[in-house]
Amino acid sequence: MAQYSSHLDGIFQALADPTRRAVLGRLGKGPASISELAKPFDMALPSFMKHIRLLENSGLIRTRKEGRVRTCAIDQKPFAMVESWLSAQRALWEARTDRLEQFATNAHKEGKSR
Amino acid sequence: MAQYSSHLDGIFQALADPTRRAVLGRLGKGPASISELAKPFDMALPSFMKHIRLLENSGLIRTRKEGRVRTCAIDQKPFAMVESWLSAQRALWEARTDRLEQFATNAHKEGKSR
Repeated sequence: MAQYSSHLDGIFQALADPTRRAVLGRLGKGPASISELAKPFDMALPSFMKHIRLLENSGLIRTRKEGRVRTCAIDQKPFAMVESWLSAQRALWEARTDRLEQFATNAHKEGKSR
Repeated sequence: MAQYSSHLDGIFQALADPTRRAVLGRLGKGPASISELAKPFDMALPSFMKHIRLLENSGLIRTRKEGRVRTCAIDQKPFAMVESWLSAQRALWEARTDRLEQFATNAHKEGKSR
């Protein structure tokens, strides 16, 4: 559970930056090399590499080096973790709405039977 | 678009912490006062208030002061923004899978017609 939680910390942290989200958007269309990914950004390569490493450490992307070229690809599992966390939140809200509706229905019935 | 992106930065940043996610989990069951929210955490109030302010600035919660009690409640809109960002990512992957399938089908047909 603690491990799941710290994994979520890293995923959300990785998503909290427009450059990293743009990289994920590009990789959503298919794998790409670091130099291809860096092209749209007006950023020095070492700064760009920090973003790539953060994405890789969070698990959102995998990278693989072949010869002198490092290729990056999306890993869908962390996205599924975020979706399942969001679903759990939504389930809490819906359970609450159900309880409120039940309460209102019972109050209405009690009012009628008086 | 830039505003939407910086809003997402703040939301993901707010979600990247186990205390803040636990507070959201508690508020998912219904509004609560700051002191009620702080109770499960072994944390000084000023530190806890930093988490509350970060959640409020991201839009994930709203707070309202009545007399000496500040009450917090979930705001669902930022959650919907995250869900829609995730759906957009998923749509990219699915479009790619469709293109790959189309390519494989065409290659198969071409192979047969030779």
